[in-house]
Amino acid sequence: METITYVTGNLAKVESAKHALEPLGFEIDNIKMETPEIQAEDVVEVSKYSAKWACEKLNKPVLKNDSGLFVNVLKGFPGVYTHYIEDTIGEDGLLKLMENVNDRTAYFKESIAYCEPGAEPVVFEGIIRGKIDTKKSGIYGWSWDFVFIPDGEEKTLGCFPDEERWEFWSQDAYKELAEYLKGTRE
Amino acid sequence: METITYVTGNLAKVESAKHALEPLGFEIDNIKMETPEIQAEDVVEVSKYSAKWACEKLNKPVLKNDSGLFVNVLKGFPGVYTHYIEDTIGEDGLLKLMENVNDRTAYFKESIAYCEPGAEPVVFEGIIRGKIDTKKSGIYGWSWDFVFIPDGEEKTLGCFPDEERWEFWSQDAYKELAEYLKGTRE
Repeated sequence: METITYVTGNLAKVESAKHALEPLGFEIDNIKMETPEIQAEDVVEVSKYSAKWACEKLNKPVLKNDSGLFVNVLKGFPGVYTHYIEDTIGEDGLLKLMENVNDRTAYFKESIAYCEPGAEPVVFEGIIRGKIDTKKSGIYGWSWDFVFIPDGEEKTLGCFPDEERWEFWSQDAYKELAEYLKGTRE
Repeated sequence: METITYVTGNLAKVESAKHALEPLGFEIDNIKMETPEIQAEDVVEVSKYSAKWACEKLNKPVLKNDSGLFVNVLKGFPGVYTHYIEDTIGEDGLLKLMENVNDRTAYFKESIAYCEPGAEPVVFEGIIRGKIDTKKSGIYGWSWDFVFIPDGEEKTLGCFPDEERWEFWSQDAYKELAEYLKGTRE
């Protein structure tokens, strides 16, 4: 049985990977590990760089994800710089930037990068579309979860407990990864 | 005569280096070159990483600078992410974040990193203290220059032509670099 190591502290991500990949005969294990983050405009580049770095360190197949919130009227801000912007201006700063703004559309984007030793990473993407609320609400999750309302909902992601919140993430990225791995093993 | 290569597109920086280092017998040449920028909280780390990278590429002694605007009440935002934040929320976004804010103090910080082949970079720092205006003004420079008023002045950096604007930067960092080089050559 092949093993893939998911480099993440987020157990829900590990469960998603298990759900998609174990039926194909892959075992998913998990470690938490700091990886360098480059300055890039998209989560795809950030996840690829981190996956390759971790893969070279561990010398085994790894998964690494990166995600960000992209607000259309702010040209994608806060984007890939979630941690820095959360630590400085935070949700209150984002809400202030959105005061009296009509176009409140935004999306969360996640990139999952898979890398094998000696190979370049391949990436699979997931998106949640929605809008920025005018105030903070909720107690689950962190950061932008408290100000982002997914399409079709009336309340922010932060109002949904973990198990419900993860369901907003399409499992398509993991399904595509599974298809990819199946193809390379045939 | 030893030559140091300043990796920058900013000719005023090259002049500052020449002014401090030529009397010591160093020649300063200059190239423009893209270098990778890491995600870090301070310009010191960014300039060190870029200097080392350029030094290894060119295999000769290099200077590399990085600078950022740090607004105290915003915990240092926009900080090292000048290009990204300028390209997204811009000066208008920064002014909006500062609406109805009393503590408007801020500082520009520059880090100059010097790196010789096979060695670790050494850094020298310069700071301009001042405050964030309530509106944009000026036609010189770019970005935060239009909203930053240096201490002792009534108008933004953007209101000062190049030659005057550069004078706000203390030449201390270059003087310290000169002292350092002098010390290592004795």
